[in-house]
Amino acid sequence: MSLPKSVKLVEVGPRDGLQNEKKIIPTAIKIDLINRLSNTGLRVIEATSFVSPQWIPQLADHSEVFQGITKGKNISYPVLVPNKKGLENAIAVGVKEVAVFTTPSETFCQRNTNCTVAESLQRIAEITEIANKNKIRIRGYLSCVLGCPYEGNISSESVADLAEKLIQLGCYEISLGDTIGVGTPGKTQTLLKTVMKKIPKEKLAVHFHDTYGQALANIYVALECGISVIDSAVAGLGGCPYAKGATGNVATEDVLYMLNGLEIESGVNLEKLVEAGRFISHYLDKPIQSKVNIAMAALT
Amino acid sequence: MSLPKSVKLVEVGPRDGLQNEKKIIPTAIKIDLINRLSNTGLRVIEATSFVSPQWIPQLADHSEVFQGITKGKNISYPVLVPNKKGLENAIAVGVKEVAVFTTPSETFCQRNTNCTVAESLQRIAEITEIANKNKIRIRGYLSCVLGCPYEGNISSESVADLAEKLIQLGCYEISLGDTIGVGTPGKTQTLLKTVMKKIPKEKLAVHFHDTYGQALANIYVALECGISVIDSAVAGLGGCPYAKGATGNVATEDVLYMLNGLEIESGVNLEKLVEAGRFISHYLDKPIQSKVNIAMAALT
Repeated sequence: MSLPKSVKLVEVGPRDGLQNEKKIIPTAIKIDLINRLSNTGLRVIEATSFVSPQWIPQLADHSEVFQGITKGKNISYPVLVPNKKGLENAIAVGVKEVAVFTTPSETFCQRNTNCTVAESLQRIAEITEIANKNKIRIRGYLSCVLGCPYEGNISSESVADLAEKLIQLGCYEISLGDTIGVGTPGKTQTLLKTVMKKIPKEKLAVHFHDTYGQALANIYVALECGISVIDSAVAGLGGCPYAKGATGNVATEDVLYMLNGLEIESGVNLEKLVEAGRFISHYLDKPIQSKVNIAMAALT
Repeated sequence: MSLPKSVKLVEVGPRDGLQNEKKIIPTAIKIDLINRLSNTGLRVIEATSFVSPQWIPQLADHSEVFQGITKGKNISYPVLVPNKKGLENAIAVGVKEVAVFTTPSETFCQRNTNCTVAESLQRIAEITEIANKNKIRIRGYLSCVLGCPYEGNISSESVADLAEKLIQLGCYEISLGDTIGVGTPGKTQTLLKTVMKKIPKEKLAVHFHDTYGQALANIYVALECGISVIDSAVAGLGGCPYAKGATGNVATEDVLYMLNGLEIESGVNLEKLVEAGRFISHYLDKPIQSKVNIAMAALT
């Protein structure tokens, strides 16, 4: 086991974070946040979701946000697309990378996206067909890989099978999401070892929510397994719809602090990231969910 | 690297936690907290500190607390003693185990305890001499082992040397404390490997503060190194005097959740622990600093 020398941080705050915040945020604030994040050294910032406003009103301004941000050189701004229509709308405003999603949990799939897992793969196939034709890169998300609020345990094999299908459909990277934050290091290791039998580690990312405080320990184990792509959200934005009041995505600041301590290069500037986290937390009028951010504020 | 099959949790909330809370807590509440903790399955609960009330007014009622608690069978209730006088007062009320402390940081030692490291060792020698005669077990704490608010980096060798001295003076176990929570997993591993060259891992404990959110990741690395004694505080009690507003000790609930996920036996009941954490946080009228506790509350 040797840790990777560098890591790519995928900032999901503007999408996964803000879609789970109660407050509807003005488009200008979202654009400001993404522009600040673009100045931190981050190379991937998930900007928004081209989902119907009926489903996620928080992100109804997806086209305006995407068009309004100042695109940084060598920074990718993927957007989530749930279906062909979302993809077409994204293409119309010049999106270059999209993210698709499904889950190994049949119940979660039905309740979250109102279709079976098989149907979700058909939708994804429709998306990837068009995306491939348009030379749009596709990232795949799998939700609930370490546990489901309805089904409980999820088998690592089912995650591996589904991840393989997404790769076959044209995803360049699969992000394994512990959507409800129930994973612990041993289970994370078992999952990753199982998935890595089918997919090279270079094509895998981890996406932890810190609902039970386990995210950094799980990320450390993922690094030990050789994973070098980590999703996180500045200021720990977001929440958990299945545990009201619980925290959301693991905070980018806390992940970066660990990476810096491990001397793993990410290219991201901690001070600028902390500042972006304070900006959005101040706007949301909620406590910052990054311990690093809180501690650094306390020291200044 | 193989993880230990069982772990001893050392609950430090009533001492390290409450001494860093601003609010002065009535003796009856402290006793109630310790009695609740005694019912969780914990085998070691640090009850208080026999320090001068001039230094820590929060724990001025140390004798009353120690005498007032219902001692559980096979549970140890160590108390911190800074000097001979503290030890004598502790012996007078029937204490069976004490904890002594020093630090590899000369500056921290001078500012925190108003003496040099060499002088602190003399004080400890005075304590251990009397303690040994009275068949009182002695636990040793080293503060700031992964960084000092005044000196910055601390060498692992200096920690190892000092730990060895405490063992020679009669301590049965050395708890390595990341007092300001700046440690990250790589540095934790390096420290433990260095200390384990001089002291068998069975005699080592880790004591993390979660100031920068790194505690669980560091504890996981410590488990990988074979450490099987972990200090923690229910509800993440306490704070950090060097970063006002920052969080304190790693929360026992969060450590236990990780241990349970790793199938490492501790004998502690999570539900009862969560209840004790809610009791004291409710009394302190402060947000619970355990993500597991918050998430479990949100689910019920």
